[in-house]
Amino acid sequence: MSKPLKVAIAGLGTVGVGVVKILETHKDLIRSRCGRSIEVVGVSANNRARDRGVDISGYQWSDNALDFAGQDDIDVVVELIGGSDGIAKELAQKSLAAGKSFVTANKALVAHHGADLANTAQEAGVALRYEAAVAGGIPIIKSIGEGLAANELNLVYGILNGTCNYILTTMEATGQSFEEVLTEAQRLGYAEADPTFDVDGIDTAHKLAILSSVAFATETDFEHVYTEGIRRIEAVDIEYAREIGYRIKLLGITRLTEKGLEQRVHPALVKKNEPIAQVEDAFNAVVAEGDFIDRTFYQGRGAGQGPTASAVVADIIDIARGHTGPAFFVPSGELKKAAPVPISEHEGACYIRLHVQEKPGVIADITSILKEHDVSLDVMLQKGHEQDGSVYVVLVTHKIQEKILSEALNRIGELSSVQEEPLAIRIENL
Amino acid sequence: MSKPLKVAIAGLGTVGVGVVKILETHKDLIRSRCGRSIEVVGVSANNRARDRGVDISGYQWSDNALDFAGQDDIDVVVELIGGSDGIAKELAQKSLAAGKSFVTANKALVAHHGADLANTAQEAGVALRYEAAVAGGIPIIKSIGEGLAANELNLVYGILNGTCNYILTTMEATGQSFEEVLTEAQRLGYAEADPTFDVDGIDTAHKLAILSSVAFATETDFEHVYTEGIRRIEAVDIEYAREIGYRIKLLGITRLTEKGLEQRVHPALVKKNEPIAQVEDAFNAVVAEGDFIDRTFYQGRGAGQGPTASAVVADIIDIARGHTGPAFFVPSGELKKAAPVPISEHEGACYIRLHVQEKPGVIADITSILKEHDVSLDVMLQKGHEQDGSVYVVLVTHKIQEKILSEALNRIGELSSVQEEPLAIRIENL
Repeated sequence: MSKPLKVAIAGLGTVGVGVVKILETHKDLIRSRCGRSIEVVGVSANNRARDRGVDISGYQWSDNALDFAGQDDIDVVVELIGGSDGIAKELAQKSLAAGKSFVTANKALVAHHGADLANTAQEAGVALRYEAAVAGGIPIIKSIGEGLAANELNLVYGILNGTCNYILTTMEATGQSFEEVLTEAQRLGYAEADPTFDVDGIDTAHKLAILSSVAFATETDFEHVYTEGIRRIEAVDIEYAREIGYRIKLLGITRLTEKGLEQRVHPALVKKNEPIAQVEDAFNAVVAEGDFIDRTFYQGRGAGQGPTASAVVADIIDIARGHTGPAFFVPSGELKKAAPVPISEHEGACYIRLHVQEKPGVIADITSILKEHDVSLDVMLQKGHEQDGSVYVVLVTHKIQEKILSEALNRIGELSSVQEEPLAIRIENL
Repeated sequence: MSKPLKVAIAGLGTVGVGVVKILETHKDLIRSRCGRSIEVVGVSANNRARDRGVDISGYQWSDNALDFAGQDDIDVVVELIGGSDGIAKELAQKSLAAGKSFVTANKALVAHHGADLANTAQEAGVALRYEAAVAGGIPIIKSIGEGLAANELNLVYGILNGTCNYILTTMEATGQSFEEVLTEAQRLGYAEADPTFDVDGIDTAHKLAILSSVAFATETDFEHVYTEGIRRIEAVDIEYAREIGYRIKLLGITRLTEKGLEQRVHPALVKKNEPIAQVEDAFNAVVAEGDFIDRTFYQGRGAGQGPTASAVVADIIDIARGHTGPAFFVPSGELKKAAPVPISEHEGACYIRLHVQEKPGVIADITSILKEHDVSLDVMLQKGHEQDGSVYVVLVTHKIQEKILSEALNRIGELSSVQEEPLAIRIENL
């Protein structure tokens, strides 16, 4: 049996504590699975005294996580601090440069600096691993990078943010508004006090940028992920979508074509019999499509102490087993720079919800503008009267280029009878 | 870049040809992903001349696959011949003993001899890999053995045979009988001329025995897998099941408890909103539950040239990357012998369909027998009259021990008014 793998944990929040729990609870199981034991030789956090529900008194304490990079007796540094820059980034660079493998759950860090860190890791001959950064309860990085390694991938998409999926499925189940459900989710601790990262799609965009690199061997390019959140979705949209056979999900979609790399995060109408449409509550799901394996579907918990810590420990076990290959599954020098495909060039069908004053000629004005821009309609529904005499008009277009549709919608939005900016939700028949 | 990995392929049927296609099509992609190239240095099959749609003239031919075990220039032998014994087994033993890694899609071989072969592989310090043997289009062996490695697993179940799922979903969609759908499936090539392995659950049992070993680190124990097929399912059962909120699937279920190892393959009623219930056509799906990660769900194609060959090549790529750990993810000496839990001890609710002559007192006779055995009912439906004056009576029991229920059903089966052996389908609220 080879010598123990020595691990230091930076950050003892929910996930850090979960990692300690797993390594203690499954000490023997893990030793058997690795052929060696995994020892925690150091921990670091802001507040040593805080009661975390686990006894950390037996572990060597550091007030400054950066010390780990300099300690000779550490093989792996586990970063659970968070943030795309600051101490997390410095710890990553210093640890890797010092020849220590680095395991993180930090999606912002990998999305922003993945290519650079992969390069540092490779030069030092150590591992950079981040399974927990994307869909904690689904081993999706390993599945794509190893399980599907015989395929050229053409498409990866998924529900990558549990909070948004919880909000959307709860809105559907209760008919409550986005604000009502969000407030309740915050009360229950399902959503952050500042929900921006979740509901505006940024968290999903971080994860998508990582999936792109794993699937297509491209340099992580978070800056060019088109990102749109779910704040404008109303219960009526979910209801109308269902009437025409769809559910609304916040999707991250990445595709590499001859045009370049298409990365987008936005609410989407998906056919209600598709597996992805049937993902409830805070679950995550990913669809990955390869040229020989066809379509594969993965579902699991996206977050929470157990699932996320489980993914972190799986990475540590991989390293203990000697699986220390390139972070993005090809040598870092072979990661491609892919030209981003702007969202304006996207083509697809679209759901449009207009809130208009009910008076003669409104529909005529709208349809004539659509006609002038060659936007053809598949469905048109006029929905019941509000007290103020306004109505909802729902349009479903045929396949149309994004930039043309937005020109038409801008003009429609300027009509005096149109009460709010038109809401457009892309329809995805993936 | 390290030296090429040299591979010999034994068996050039659908899957073998698929492996050749992938290794040719993705030569550069694979070299980049492995940091070395994978070279086919030999092929073997029964008929050299047969047109297989790929040009094999460039590869060294052997009439006898066993020659590969003796060739010094071969690193990995890929066995795609099939069969639990005979040449496949001999090739496995000789290749591993000769220090060559062994990759197979042969579920029968691994289900029957997994523990022995793992031991031989370990002694020789080489890899035994079989991702393609279970749910080809789902990287489930890797997901459980590596992705979920931080967990103690308590339950794994799934739809592991595409032919049976195709038959059941087609029966549901068309209302056709089992025989009608089977004949059509055979005509289309979805089912073998001899469908026994598929429809009687043997194929599923092979795969389940393998999943048990991967999940629980127990020696493969195919002999103790309780196995029941789908021949007796009729369209009416699918229809009645739907009425009470269920769909019928052929499941493989494995669970390790303090009582021992419970392995069973049989048709089951599953709640129609469960992901497993929504698996259509020839797709496979697996649910794996760990103590920290909770429930994970995987869906993909179960068979076919592309998906199966993709899994075989993924194993070869893993070996090229140096991932040559134990076949069942723990040292072979640590594989446990688990006591089998007999099906008679299983407890659960059950769907029962009786075909009875409609005459006074029949129901009374049936219910009094159930009462004597303390079998309590949750639902009782009497279904419309056949021309011959017979009716279907459908019963749903509360949770009951199998041996008690079968005693009651044997007595009911002996009633003169009961026209055929009662059909019992277990209800799984997993």
